[in-house]
Amino acid sequence: MALIVQKFGGSSVANAERVFNVASIITDTYKKGNNVVVVVSAQGDTTDDLIEKAKEINPNASKREMDMLLTAGEQISISLLAMAIEKLGCPVISLLGWQAGFRTNSAYGSARIHEVATDRLQKEIDGKKIVIVAGFQGLNKYDDMTTLGRGGSDTSAVAIAAALHADRCQIYTDVTGVFTADPRKVENAQKLKDITYDEMLEFATLGAQVLNNRSVEMAKKYNVELEVLSSLVREEGTIVREVANMEKMLIRGVTKDTDVARISVVGMKDIPGNAFKMFSRLAQKGINIDVILQSVGRDGTKDISFTCAKGNADDAVAILKDIFDMEGAVVSSDTTVAKVSIVGAGMQSHSGTASKMFGALYEAGININMISTSEITISVLIDKEYADKAVSAVHKAFFG
Amino acid sequence: MALIVQKFGGSSVANAERVFNVASIITDTYKKGNNVVVVVSAQGDTTDDLIEKAKEINPNASKREMDMLLTAGEQISISLLAMAIEKLGCPVISLLGWQAGFRTNSAYGSARIHEVATDRLQKEIDGKKIVIVAGFQGLNKYDDMTTLGRGGSDTSAVAIAAALHADRCQIYTDVTGVFTADPRKVENAQKLKDITYDEMLEFATLGAQVLNNRSVEMAKKYNVELEVLSSLVREEGTIVREVANMEKMLIRGVTKDTDVARISVVGMKDIPGNAFKMFSRLAQKGINIDVILQSVGRDGTKDISFTCAKGNADDAVAILKDIFDMEGAVVSSDTTVAKVSIVGAGMQSHSGTASKMFGALYEAGININMISTSEITISVLIDKEYADKAVSAVHKAFFG
Repeated sequence: MALIVQKFGGSSVANAERVFNVASIITDTYKKGNNVVVVVSAQGDTTDDLIEKAKEINPNASKREMDMLLTAGEQISISLLAMAIEKLGCPVISLLGWQAGFRTNSAYGSARIHEVATDRLQKEIDGKKIVIVAGFQGLNKYDDMTTLGRGGSDTSAVAIAAALHADRCQIYTDVTGVFTADPRKVENAQKLKDITYDEMLEFATLGAQVLNNRSVEMAKKYNVELEVLSSLVREEGTIVREVANMEKMLIRGVTKDTDVARISVVGMKDIPGNAFKMFSRLAQKGINIDVILQSVGRDGTKDISFTCAKGNADDAVAILKDIFDMEGAVVSSDTTVAKVSIVGAGMQSHSGTASKMFGALYEAGININMISTSEITISVLIDKEYADKAVSAVHKAFFG
Repeated sequence: MALIVQKFGGSSVANAERVFNVASIITDTYKKGNNVVVVVSAQGDTTDDLIEKAKEINPNASKREMDMLLTAGEQISISLLAMAIEKLGCPVISLLGWQAGFRTNSAYGSARIHEVATDRLQKEIDGKKIVIVAGFQGLNKYDDMTTLGRGGSDTSAVAIAAALHADRCQIYTDVTGVFTADPRKVENAQKLKDITYDEMLEFATLGAQVLNNRSVEMAKKYNVELEVLSSLVREEGTIVREVANMEKMLIRGVTKDTDVARISVVGMKDIPGNAFKMFSRLAQKGINIDVILQSVGRDGTKDISFTCAKGNADDAVAILKDIFDMEGAVVSSDTTVAKVSIVGAGMQSHSGTASKMFGALYEAGININMISTSEITISVLIDKEYADKAVSAVHKAFFG
């Protein structure tokens, strides 16, 4: 007998029909002899509707009261899901985040989990009940409701799986797994049987958002075996674990990220500390920097280019102009770029991966603006117009 | 400085505009230097909407899960009301039933309050915060959500007032107080300045539902001074307390109840135990009996008539036929009746009250079917068609 944690997002339980679809997945798992703990988000648009109600009354409401409001959303979905499971004839109980033992710090709206005290959970599991837990929420030391922020329900599921030493944590989504590329756009995109935590983290960072990074990091830390699978199509998903089956594939997939801007500072004086000044000021403003390229410019000056999220481009330019205008350096931004990356822990031990990627792009006639590499990724910055073409070409080179 | 508990029903906070109306009543009370604890119900139709959602999924859902679902309703209203008060610039905090210390038994759907543990409430009051408490809800010994059933928020408010020894518990409604008769129907109906708990209980029982009986009983038990007043019209309401000002008025008001059926059993054998058999069987089925009239019938038989709520009439007739058909007695019901009553602790010490009432009905040409009296009420059963006419005639006789 195994202990399975299953997580369902808000769209999976958006109406009565979907609630019963999810209920049947759960009861099927239970009837196979497993213990089942389920984490569920608020139904469909509930959270957005509640935020709208709050804004109508007070756009500057305290985060404490916002969390009090929003946690009502999962309370509705857990009880409705439990009622559906009662209808299907299985023993079930719904638990709020605090009842399931979620203790957090007091950062309302983006609380961190301190502990999952499992007494109640364990008692209900021992009583052979399917346990439905409200995701996204916990309780702080003042006994006040908190929420975990974006992707909070994924994090709740992984935290429960870690605390209960569950055999697997299944994250149900609207895709059937993790693919080598976006299957809607790339021919021959293949579903991966498995993938490592690090690869999954790179996938998320590089724009193929399936799982929330925070939940993958937690899964890695506590060695929780994840499965990404679909709530609508019943087939095996992709397993995320420490050591994936790497025999066959050097790389795991090709991703693109079009939410990217390139910022350039051309003609900086070549004096120590310029890069430090630049990136520390950007960091102070909360602007995350990705690919960085530094080159020697004309007349002993330096050029630095880097990428950041599009939404930060204007702020970044303003900050850099403030620093470098006096020096005569020219600051500019370009949002017509895209980042295309390959991800795979296998490439560490294989030479030729980068040249294979660059060759594929060359043959497709696509110019590379910038290159960056990490242990398990190679990313190139190209003209946004050619992003899909680039993904297809690179995917074909590696996956045929 | 006084401690005031204020209770607002669901229609008082049904939309953003009404939420702000209520918020301004609260902050005005606070700004006058009072400590304020507020009990609020779920907004408008929220509870009905949630029940509808549950029925769609499982009409036989467990009461435990129903209470989990329904308690989300007040969670939404307390946080929205707190946000409105934040907007008006006063310090405020919302608390769920369990956070406010409501401990109940485990009768889901109609839980009884065991205790209001006031630590948290007192801490927030001491911190000069307006405290907004979710009415209708509590927590049982398993740490599961419970609801208090019909009129639960009134009961929550009185329980908090009792536990905190509040100076007054204000129940805001859609009427400006308790009247000598329904002001929409009776000319010269007068608002009462005050009324005793017992009189208020009779008013509720007799069909002039303003306050829930359970909350009045609790107020009487713990000597909580109630005020019934309007959330829309700002004027003094009616005070409910142990000794009301009885100098002027013998009686407090005239009420009618049209949710009443008369059941008759004619021609019972005159043997001991028939009345016991009859009323114990009715009690087993949860049918509450009101006025009872027994008379000698023809040929040494007995007739018994009584009244009950209309909704129980068919059940009552079926039960009685089951008992008395064998004996040849005839069971019938009549739902074209109404009960008109006068209420007033003052009538105890005054003779002539009953004859004054009967005289007024006689002059109005209204026939009396049955009469019953208690220490502070006199009720008559009449043809429903004449109910309003009867109320007006009796009201005129006592209040001019």
